[in-house]
Amino acid sequence: MLHRYFLQLSYNGTRYHGWQVQPNAVSVQETIEKALSTLLREPVSVVGAGRTDTGVHASYFILHFDLQKPVAAGYDLVYKLNSYLPNDIAVQKCWPVSGEAHARFSATSRTYHYFITTEKDPFSNETAYRYTLPLDVDKMNEAAQMLFNYEDFTSFSRLHTDVKTNNCKIYRAEWKREGARLVFVVKADRFLRNMVRAIVGTLLEVGKGKLSVAEFCAIIERQDRGAAGASAPAHGLFLVDIEYPEAIIHSKM
Amino acid sequence: MLHRYFLQLSYNGTRYHGWQVQPNAVSVQETIEKALSTLLREPVSVVGAGRTDTGVHASYFILHFDLQKPVAAGYDLVYKLNSYLPNDIAVQKCWPVSGEAHARFSATSRTYHYFITTEKDPFSNETAYRYTLPLDVDKMNEAAQMLFNYEDFTSFSRLHTDVKTNNCKIYRAEWKREGARLVFVVKADRFLRNMVRAIVGTLLEVGKGKLSVAEFCAIIERQDRGAAGASAPAHGLFLVDIEYPEAIIHSKM
Repeated sequence: MLHRYFLQLSYNGTRYHGWQVQPNAVSVQETIEKALSTLLREPVSVVGAGRTDTGVHASYFILHFDLQKPVAAGYDLVYKLNSYLPNDIAVQKCWPVSGEAHARFSATSRTYHYFITTEKDPFSNETAYRYTLPLDVDKMNEAAQMLFNYEDFTSFSRLHTDVKTNNCKIYRAEWKREGARLVFVVKADRFLRNMVRAIVGTLLEVGKGKLSVAEFCAIIERQDRGAAGASAPAHGLFLVDIEYPEAIIHSKM
Repeated sequence: MLHRYFLQLSYNGTRYHGWQVQPNAVSVQETIEKALSTLLREPVSVVGAGRTDTGVHASYFILHFDLQKPVAAGYDLVYKLNSYLPNDIAVQKCWPVSGEAHARFSATSRTYHYFITTEKDPFSNETAYRYTLPLDVDKMNEAAQMLFNYEDFTSFSRLHTDVKTNNCKIYRAEWKREGARLVFVVKADRFLRNMVRAIVGTLLEVGKGKLSVAEFCAIIERQDRGAAGASAPAHGLFLVDIEYPEAIIHSKM
């Protein structure tokens, strides 16, 4: 019988070629698998809640892994794992779950934040996209509200072989001002590859006055990736929350 | 007649060998002088409000410079200067002042923040000192209050030839909790070289239970740098405010 564990972590994506293991490039997944395998003295594979792209950050991320023999998944394990991991990946929590709990398929929602700094800021070069020209944030919010009217977001996806549908349920989509920052908060049951960055890039076209709200809707309706604006840069994007049914979040112990 | 200007800026000190120009090392001062000289087409020397050490940051910094010919010190100058400067130095404002205004000698107070992160945080490796073991913050605050009883801070200074006295007036000194962060806020009329980091390092000894509050006072009274604790690391320190008399802060125009 295998023993399954959930692990909560955060990472600064700057130095990584995204979450997923790739040949000839360092990924977050690979870095964590190496640390876990060394610490637990058995080869460990991990399954992440999602696949962030190169340069994208996560202030909240969940993965699962299975072990042949159970371990005490408490403070000690977290502390040791952090000492094996580099400074830009931090583990907050590890706990046992039932064998049916799946980091990716059991998740019921994901929330992303996209940060734009409207002033030059020496402290957010890796964590916010700098855009200092005027933006009509009201219009950007008006367009963002239109996302609730649609389910098929093919126009905001990258061609992707392993998904069966391009349907997503949007639960939240809004721009907020926080001092010299703009934050786009978006929550959905699932996101297609590249979807948040494509939405942000297209909403920025609305903010610049290059697209009307009606044109934004028309882009979604066309269900064609070529129709949308350019993707916003990766370094402004943070995965900030993932929800699971209560029964899974709680330890089985 | 020379025309004097104040410039407000912020910088991430990670890549710099401090504020002051040094042989064989890149300083913030030198980087700004080069940008100003190129932009204004005359050799420009700048005088900073203080001299931050290697790796120390400033979210608020003031310098002055003199020009042979007056310039329009408005939004355009700031915008162009920012485009000449690297990402880790940002200019917010430039304005003309009278010839008596001096960035360093006219300043009536400086405020520093020292950030400690009590958890591993992938996003503050350059901007907070990580210390995850328990600290008695109440005791650290009790000791910090003792700073108000003294004026001679030789024990917290580095040997320094160009200052006449080691006396400083402390206006504020307290530790605050902000989530997983501890912030030491300290304000004084002036600070000696290395003083904030030496105070923080010694207060950390109090927090770890290695020094009592009475021993902290005895260290100050000894007026001997060898008596204090090790300096806290540079990357947790931010210069955050500098005050000037109203007549100087306001533009002479």
